Amino acid sequence: MTAVPAELRSDIEGSLLRRMTAEAVGSGFLVAAVVGSGIAAARLSPGQPGLQLLENALVTGAVLTAMILALHPVSAAFNPVVVLVERADGLVSSRDAVGLVAAQVVGAAVGAVTANVMFDLPPVTVASTDRGGGGLWVAEVVATAGLVLVAYGAGRSGSAGSARLRVALAVGAYITAAYWFTSSTSFANPAVTLARTLSDTFAGIAPASVPAFVLMQVVGAALGYGLVRLLRAPSEGTSR
Amino acid sequence: MTAVPAELRSDIEGSLLRRMTAEAVGSGFLVAAVVGSGIAAARLSPGQPGLQLLENALVTGAVLTAMILALHPVSAAFNPVVVLVERADGLVSSRDAVGLVAAQVVGAAVGAVTANVMFDLPPVTVASTDRGGGGLWVAEVVATAGLVLVAYGAGRSGSAGSARLRVALAVGAYITAAYWFTSSTSFANPAVTLARTLSDTFAGIAPASVPAFVLMQVVGAALGYGLVRLLRAPSEGTSR
Amino acid sequence: MTAVPAELRSDIEGSLLRRMTAEAVGSGFLVAAVVGSGIAAARLSPGQPGLQLLENALVTGAVLTAMILALHPVSAAFNPVVVLVERADGLVSSRDAVGLVAAQVVGAAVGAVTANVMFDLPPVTVASTDRGGGGLWVAEVVATAGLVLVAYGAGRSGSAGSARLRVALAVGAYITAAYWFTSSTSFANPAVTLARTLSDTFAGIAPASVPAFVLMQVVGAALGYGLVRLLRAPSEGTSR
Amino acid sequence: MTAVPAELRSDIEGSLLRRMTAEAVGSGFLVAAVVGSGIAAARLSPGQPGLQLLENALVTGAVLTAMILALHPVSAAFNPVVVLVERADGLVSSRDAVGLVAAQVVGAAVGAVTANVMFDLPPVTVASTDRGGGGLWVAEVVATAGLVLVAYGAGRSGSAGSARLRVALAVGAYITAAYWFTSSTSFANPAVTLARTLSDTFAGIAPASVPAFVLMQVVGAALGYGLVRLLRAPSEGTSR
Repeated sequence: MTAVPAELRSDIEGSLLRRMTAEAVGSGFLVAAVVGSGIAAARLSPGQPGLQLLENALVTGAVLTAMILALHPVSAAFNPVVVLVERADGLVSSRDAVGLVAAQVVGAAVGAVTANVMFDLPPVTVASTDRGGGGLWVAEVVATAGLVLVAYGAGRSGSAGSARLRVALAVGAYITAAYWFTSSTSFANPAVTLARTLSDTFAGIAPASVPAFVLMQVVGAALGYGLVRLLRAPSEGTSR
Repeated sequence: MTAVPAELRSDIEGSLLRRMTAEAVGSGFLVAAVVGSGIAAARLSPGQPGLQLLENALVTGAVLTAMILALHPVSAAFNPVVVLVERADGLVSSRDAVGLVAAQVVGAAVGAVTANVMFDLPPVTVASTDRGGGGLWVAEVVATAGLVLVAYGAGRSGSAGSARLRVALAVGAYITAAYWFTSSTSFANPAVTLARTLSDTFAGIAPASVPAFVLMQVVGAALGYGLVRLLRAPSEGTSR
Repeated sequence: MTAVPAELRSDIEGSLLRRMTAEAVGSGFLVAAVVGSGIAAARLSPGQPGLQLLENALVTGAVLTAMILALHPVSAAFNPVVVLVERADGLVSSRDAVGLVAAQVVGAAVGAVTANVMFDLPPVTVASTDRGGGGLWVAEVVATAGLVLVAYGAGRSGSAGSARLRVALAVGAYITAAYWFTSSTSFANPAVTLARTLSDTFAGIAPASVPAFVLMQVVGAALGYGLVRLLRAPSEGTSR
Repeated sequence: MTAVPAELRSDIEGSLLRRMTAEAVGSGFLVAAVVGSGIAAARLSPGQPGLQLLENALVTGAVLTAMILALHPVSAAFNPVVVLVERADGLVSSRDAVGLVAAQVVGAAVGAVTANVMFDLPPVTVASTDRGGGGLWVAEVVATAGLVLVAYGAGRSGSAGSARLRVALAVGAYITAAYWFTSSTSFANPAVTLARTLSDTFAGIAPASVPAFVLMQVVGAALGYGLVRLLRAPSEGTSR
């Protein structure tokens, strides 16, 4: 299994600036969707946490599908751990990886601020929701491992257009599901996790809870990458 | 990034009348779905605004996906701002653009009237729901910028059939999400906005609120087109 | 716009018996899903008609997508009005059309009985829900016209597999939406309408309400076929 | 109708170990999703069994779509009855079939334990929910027959990538629907059924209820395979 079919490679050879722009824009819409739909859900479905999470999960999955369809393969799924895995797989240089992750972090933060502003809240309020504990940390490992497996596996074979479609649908469906089947509601993305400290609303996470979440995400990504390598056909070789 | 792969161009060379028909029909079903499902949601889920919006959002996204699959690329997504962007990009002439927008406005109005009639309401009732304010206006800019980005980006590369599929899924998913993550519930379409003045129900908007909404949509479209140009690979040149 | 790309034609040349089997099986699952999910929704979400309809609508759209993916183009979408339109378009002979519609009617009835049995109800109970009136009849015309437009339009161009995918997604999405944006909840199918007289549950319709519904569906199909012809490019000629 | 287009065959010729890994991983995520989302739904939507089932059904369908996109055709849909049908169809050897089913059973059990742990429950609690009776047994037959029909039929024709997409969407949509239109909520998978004895939560099934469920699933699979053969075009011959 290789993340990027041969046909896509050349398309990825865009300038770093163009790819950083794609990462920033996609990450911005992703976080605006996570935070914004959380605010709307809490306001419109008070006292119904299940319905709120359903609304939040469907919106997040849908925006991911839309943004991957619009920006992939210029972009790396708006997720630093995917960049990390692509670095390990030799698909991006270290220099580019740093640039892409920086773009993701900045874009995600702008997205959170935009959501706050759209809902007439102060641009930034530091989140106070503590998230953590054994079950949640296991959940972040599982969620991120699955995400890496899905993002990589769905991109195998076919034309650039069809691979893009499969990755977009797989990642969107997976994240909608993972909001529910993991106890952490599947953050599974360090840039998004950081940005969610900037809104003290439904989707927020207290800054003190971030380091453990990010650590578990990196562990999950490593686990997911191990699975990807295990499942890769010998004939596919390494992707370098 | 170009909106229309080379393969599609010839298909678009249909007579203007045929394309206006497609825009009118698609805009009609779109607004009938927005207004009709709003009426049904308000009747069937009283006192649950979150569930109502979920029903309204899922229906709108689904009908957009279905209509784009049925009518694209004969049509320009039933949205005047998309026509505007295609004009800026040199894909349609000024004369055609005027015809397409007129067809969208008329079709959308017929859709609103049809929804009223189906639900045994007077054919036209002027909406009284005021919508506006700083947050909502920012929301319309964000919603429309994202829509342009998604509609353009998802159409890149591949055969006519596969581009149609990607655009249909991306736009449907995006709008379902944008109902929730923007505080304005993402009108993002001047023809639809105008038509929604014709039904004093769940989805209605007071005529006095329309000009600011449309202005923000035009600003958002310009912003979205700027992003599209920024993300376009140099090798893709301009699309003229 | 032609319903069936040249590549698909040969695939359709199966024996009539095989095609009747496909129609019967697909219609059976479709009605089992409509009736069965209606029973489940009424039992599990008492007092919440909106949530019940959402459950019913999502299930119907999903099963349509699955069955079209599994059986198309062997089948004609499990709908007598689609057979009627294909007859008008010269795609099936009169003899075959009769056989296909008969298979749809029988299969749909078996589906209703199966749903009753699965939920431990008597195999047949005559439905007592009166459905009708001006708004609802307009709704059936609109719903069926849209369905014909979507089923035909989405099948344009591309390989057999990709056309199948587009039709499946478009029809599933459209019907999910039409449950909500039409006041009749979009029966839009004479075989399904007849079969829904066999279960006095959520999805039932009283036999006396059937003739007007079927008449409106035929009118809608004619209207939809007119739109299809209007939108068909001159170069596509007739499909004979 | 053949389950596996010629193009896919060579791709399936992976080592048995690789295919067992795919089955185990996919089955694990599938059961983690079924059990985990059941726990979350019960906690977050108390007293609303309909909403709980909707949440559970959407998550299960979404994770199936994601995992099939990521792992198909290395895998056999994480379902022993699909392996059984592929054995009957001559697509796998008896030795391989045993290995694949074993991997599914083990992976599914690990998934259930993982869900329990993520939600801070004991790793294993034996389920106490009795499930059975005439209607439910008929339901398991119907559910499994439909699943075999859908999984096989959707894979017909096209490239490896497009067949994968169609199977993933068809199976995901079908299972989401079948949760609702069958009275048993459509277990339709012996490995998943066994694993659901390991969590005394929303999705659990008492061990004493398992044998009858599995028997009905095997009957349903045979029925579904009969339909597949009936619908297979003569020109497609047998798939050996």
